[in-house]
Amino acid sequence: ADAGAMSRARARQAQLTKPAGALGDLEDLGVRLAGVFGCERPHPRGVAVLVAVGDHGVAAGGVSAYPPEVTPAMVANFLAETPAGPGGAAVNAMARMVGARVYVMDAGVNAELPAHPALIRAALRRGTRDLRLEPAMTCEETEALILAGAGLARRAIHDGADLIIPGEMGIGNTTPAAALSARLLEVDAAQVTGRGTGVDDETLARKLAAVREALARTPVTAPLNVLAELGGYEIAAMLGIMLQAAALRRAVVLDGFVEGSAALVGVALAPALRDFLFPAGECAEIGHGAQLAALGLRPMFKLGLRLGEGTGGVLAAPLLLAAAATLREMRTFEEAGVPAG
Amino acid sequence: ADAGAMSRARARQAQLTKPAGALGDLEDLGVRLAGVFGCERPHPRGVAVLVAVGDHGVAAGGVSAYPPEVTPAMVANFLAETPAGPGGAAVNAMARMVGARVYVMDAGVNAELPAHPALIRAALRRGTRDLRLEPAMTCEETEALILAGAGLARRAIHDGADLIIPGEMGIGNTTPAAALSARLLEVDAAQVTGRGTGVDDETLARKLAAVREALARTPVTAPLNVLAELGGYEIAAMLGIMLQAAALRRAVVLDGFVEGSAALVGVALAPALRDFLFPAGECAEIGHGAQLAALGLRPMFKLGLRLGEGTGGVLAAPLLLAAAATLREMRTFEEAGVPAG
Repeated sequence: ADAGAMSRARARQAQLTKPAGALGDLEDLGVRLAGVFGCERPHPRGVAVLVAVGDHGVAAGGVSAYPPEVTPAMVANFLAETPAGPGGAAVNAMARMVGARVYVMDAGVNAELPAHPALIRAALRRGTRDLRLEPAMTCEETEALILAGAGLARRAIHDGADLIIPGEMGIGNTTPAAALSARLLEVDAAQVTGRGTGVDDETLARKLAAVREALARTPVTAPLNVLAELGGYEIAAMLGIMLQAAALRRAVVLDGFVEGSAALVGVALAPALRDFLFPAGECAEIGHGAQLAALGLRPMFKLGLRLGEGTGGVLAAPLLLAAAATLREMRTFEEAGVPAG
Repeated sequence: ADAGAMSRARARQAQLTKPAGALGDLEDLGVRLAGVFGCERPHPRGVAVLVAVGDHGVAAGGVSAYPPEVTPAMVANFLAETPAGPGGAAVNAMARMVGARVYVMDAGVNAELPAHPALIRAALRRGTRDLRLEPAMTCEETEALILAGAGLARRAIHDGADLIIPGEMGIGNTTPAAALSARLLEVDAAQVTGRGTGVDDETLARKLAAVREALARTPVTAPLNVLAELGGYEIAAMLGIMLQAAALRRAVVLDGFVEGSAALVGVALAPALRDFLFPAGECAEIGHGAQLAALGLRPMFKLGLRLGEGTGGVLAAPLLLAAAATLREMRTFEEAGVPAG
């Protein structure tokens, strides 16, 4: 991030017509946005949510409350024509309200998806391999999905996006996200393995055993090897989205736990990525708090979301735009002739 | 609120294409909005922030970090032409970003305000009397300001507002708000007297003494008498805004501590008002948490705001619109052909 712009933004923040610090966390968010956009009066405009979808070999092991058939059905839902507009999922409804553009990528869904002009096809395989038994992805697949994510980010940015929201959907994907987080945060699997979409105690025990089995199978610690071994095609795609967005100096709004696991890989690879990450809310999934603590970033709200799809990021976008708007558009004490106290 | 619409909304919420409860607090907010708008698929559109401004006799007692001259200067700032559009204050910048309309009312500023076509004039006196020494407002003034607030709410609703955000500005106004809260919550003054815009220890001690003095001066407990005695013209105006908005079945988005004190008076007068109130964030002012606990309502975020002007309410508006949008626009499992797990 641009340290000069941040320091000018901080100086400007102190001159604006409000008591010092009265905008709370928004003031620091504004300064961080100044750093991202290289300007003490940042003006982010377009918002895009990029939903990568993939299936998971481990889902056959009964780690989710939902059957894997939900994954392709949700792709159809993301793309459906509805009376309100395109898309019948939560992320679509929220994005319409915020004015965000939604992109949907098949990163590796285990189904023959019907043709749709808006579907971005990047799948190399119908779902990952079972991370308990073998590497979930090959190195070539991992690289290809990272590049596909990067390509999608470039497209969204070309279409006008300044706030990039990686989102995901894929039955079973909190299992690889938990395994990735345990390895990269160097914590016990139980600390980061949660109920996902809402599994019962028995399924949670199975899920935790699956995470432990995967971690015991492979000792890798290099970030890209960890990603390939423990997987998630949509996680690899989100990593590519984040790295490309940061390289092009855009802000990345982080939704929940699965997005957080991609961010951990990204920051391990390129620590400077952190400056471009803006966590939305602390989600209900256990382990999200540990991810945010490791990233050293504070979430904007705590609404108990645990849906994914980038929904938390879409909700946070107006807060970030407002943080930028106050820093950019408010008058100073001098301009307004207001006594500074 | 409409209990039938809420129960239909709750049933619909359970059918939408997401794991049950995955939208966290947004689900309950959606159901409450269904109750307000009398429809299980609520569709709030316009957002308005109604900023009432007043001065306070007690400000002469040195209870604020800022001189009273800031109040009229901020009115000018709310109305100023700037390169970004009308208004150079935080609430203006945020409102432009959210698409909210801003209304500015002189509820009793201690200055000759220059003519401005957008300024709503409702002042009867240049600032309240000193609540330490005498009733801050007469009963007639109190009633007139409540009616002025109600009139402004009707105008905003006529202009298309479905989410009504009462806002305020007035140097010294956390002092009457603290006195009102202490009396209505039946707690010690120290529990609800805070640093406002950021006063030092000495000023805080003076402010607390002023609150205690006012409370000791008058034993009244009837809500309108408490309001008149302890005052705040802008607080009376906000009370009128809230009551009128609720009567016309609009949602009231509550910003901070001063707004909260008006809400306490309102709920004491008319308990059903509570169903129409949506607290934005928990602000940094001590005592706001106690107000929210008494109202039995959960805030949407905790960003450490302590500015007022309705800024927190403006930030919360997109979250409420998103809660309504998901409830209204998402497809059901059946519509989408998604296996329900």
